[in-house]
Amino acid sequence: MTDTFIDSQSVREYLLGLQQRIVGKFEELDGQPFLRDAWEKPADAPLGGGGMTRIIEEGNVLERGGVGFSHVMGKTLPPSATAQRPELAGRGFEAMGVSLVFHPRNPYVPTVHMNVRFFIARANSGAQRPDHHPSPLGEGPGGVGESNRPAGRRNAPPLGEGHGGVGEPDKAHQAPAQSADAWWFGGGMDLTPYYATEEDARHFHATCKKALAPFGADKHPRFKKWCDEYFYLKHRNEPRGIGGVFFDDFHEMGFEQSFAMMRAVGDAFLDAYVPIVERHKHREYGPREREFQAYRRGRYVEFNLVFDRGTLFGLQSGGRTESILMSLPPKVEWKYNWQPQPGTPEARLYSEFLRPRDWA
Amino acid sequence: MTDTFIDSQSVREYLLGLQQRIVGKFEELDGQPFLRDAWEKPADAPLGGGGMTRIIEEGNVLERGGVGFSHVMGKTLPPSATAQRPELAGRGFEAMGVSLVFHPRNPYVPTVHMNVRFFIARANSGAQRPDHHPSPLGEGPGGVGESNRPAGRRNAPPLGEGHGGVGEPDKAHQAPAQSADAWWFGGGMDLTPYYATEEDARHFHATCKKALAPFGADKHPRFKKWCDEYFYLKHRNEPRGIGGVFFDDFHEMGFEQSFAMMRAVGDAFLDAYVPIVERHKHREYGPREREFQAYRRGRYVEFNLVFDRGTLFGLQSGGRTESILMSLPPKVEWKYNWQPQPGTPEARLYSEFLRPRDWA
Repeated sequence: MTDTFIDSQSVREYLLGLQQRIVGKFEELDGQPFLRDAWEKPADAPLGGGGMTRIIEEGNVLERGGVGFSHVMGKTLPPSATAQRPELAGRGFEAMGVSLVFHPRNPYVPTVHMNVRFFIARANSGAQRPDHHPSPLGEGPGGVGESNRPAGRRNAPPLGEGHGGVGEPDKAHQAPAQSADAWWFGGGMDLTPYYATEEDARHFHATCKKALAPFGADKHPRFKKWCDEYFYLKHRNEPRGIGGVFFDDFHEMGFEQSFAMMRAVGDAFLDAYVPIVERHKHREYGPREREFQAYRRGRYVEFNLVFDRGTLFGLQSGGRTESILMSLPPKVEWKYNWQPQPGTPEARLYSEFLRPRDWA
Repeated sequence: MTDTFIDSQSVREYLLGLQQRIVGKFEELDGQPFLRDAWEKPADAPLGGGGMTRIIEEGNVLERGGVGFSHVMGKTLPPSATAQRPELAGRGFEAMGVSLVFHPRNPYVPTVHMNVRFFIARANSGAQRPDHHPSPLGEGPGGVGESNRPAGRRNAPPLGEGHGGVGEPDKAHQAPAQSADAWWFGGGMDLTPYYATEEDARHFHATCKKALAPFGADKHPRFKKWCDEYFYLKHRNEPRGIGGVFFDDFHEMGFEQSFAMMRAVGDAFLDAYVPIVERHKHREYGPREREFQAYRRGRYVEFNLVFDRGTLFGLQSGGRTESILMSLPPKVEWKYNWQPQPGTPEARLYSEFLRPRDWA
């Protein structure tokens, strides 16, 4: 790690460009435009800042899809960010990111989520700005926001010494000095199919692996495992989907390389997902497939509202509710104790895909 | 308050009888039977015990409705119960209750929730059983489970000296001695209409008021206010519905009278709700009303998964997921930033009903 300037303006520009590229591609694919909804928090709001929400509803390909950019700042880190990092509690913070969830209409096209983000926890003085003052990065890990560990998860993975994981109480003492800003990147993408195929799973994971390869051979296995563990519905004993990659609290390579790695993940999204959409978007389906899709979407709602730290962080910090909850699916069903019939394509999702596997 | 034996066997019998009465009445009203699903946790489960789930799906009147009885015991109070009562953390506990949510098919019939429950936090020794040993009730309040305060709510109501509210940090020091069992009752019911009427609102609240009248004039205003504050979606700045009554952590009148009050609430449910169902169940509706109902049901999901302590307690303590989540609606929709047209019946729900009012 090296001392360096934190160029948050470049991060912001990258994020806005990424949002535009993804929306542009999906407007072309869908044939329908995304709505453009710029928002700004009032000056006296507990969470300041603003963002740009791009959303499509009732599209041809996407039944509901949102790509949000937000750049917010607040005076006090909320509980979802600080629960396991008491030394950062109460600090001022700044967060920017692009977050997307696409819920396709065709049940043969998987739902997808991608998020890249940059976080700064201010020094306690509140006066320093990391883009004006160098941050002594060597002093310890930063890491908050969409936390790296689901609450109460039991089997923490051995992520290596360089990880500096949020949520590992034994590392809490490695806090940055109170007078220093802390910063970190986070991101990832994961796929949630209804009628899964091995080809899709291999392609999605291989694309993630390729994107991370320039940053060290350890990155993909670490972030793949982290993803499997993060997107897990404890109360169902079930993964949300077939995974992908997830990282948070990342600064171990210094600002430039950490930022480059976040960009690599963001840039890989279209390569990872678009071929899967193209492959299935014209497949025929009927009420049976739509029903299974609506039922499985219930799991997405359960994960996002019960476990997802990004969602809870947003809601708890006074974020913009409609932008946060645009991740929820358009039409959802709950049924009591529903189980697929053995031997059906629906049963195959559970038996062959909803279990962590080495797809890449 | 008087020292007394805790007759948990009688509470259990009352709860099972109440479940049967309610299910019997609604089987008659609906014309379709409720499924009967008895469950028992494995001997080595973190949460022991069992229950009886009664559920109807695709009924004539109820699109989805569940009435659950459960009686569970665990070795360690989970976070949702102890977050604000650190002195009870780690205690063994026992909880029994009946909980119901009815989601009618006809959008003119409101959704309803009712719950009555009894909770015991074991003395630290773990050896005492409160039905065998008198509990020194004068030592302080007990109170966990479906907590009385949404996390992080700002304006705590002045509930009076006798309240002993969970979630009031300034009362946390009034903990029972570590060697004593703590017990309490909780309960309530609340109504969530889509197309509301003043007549329904007045009838529902008046029935609650009448049920509580024998237990002191203070009870209804306290519990009505508590309900308005508990069933509140902070991130929407919106009540869940038109309220009703809610209480928790209740033992201030001693076991016999506190139990009698819980029974009064349980017994009032059919009187409060059935006339409203009868009044509207044959009203005609179309896709517009169904769409509004599906949209508003999204709020129910948001409340139950983000805020409801009973749900979180169940999921965190290793409760039976399908029984806990039978409160979720059958068919739900999310739409971005949807607002009703001014002057419509949909707008009237927001302007005239989704605000606390003195209905009784």
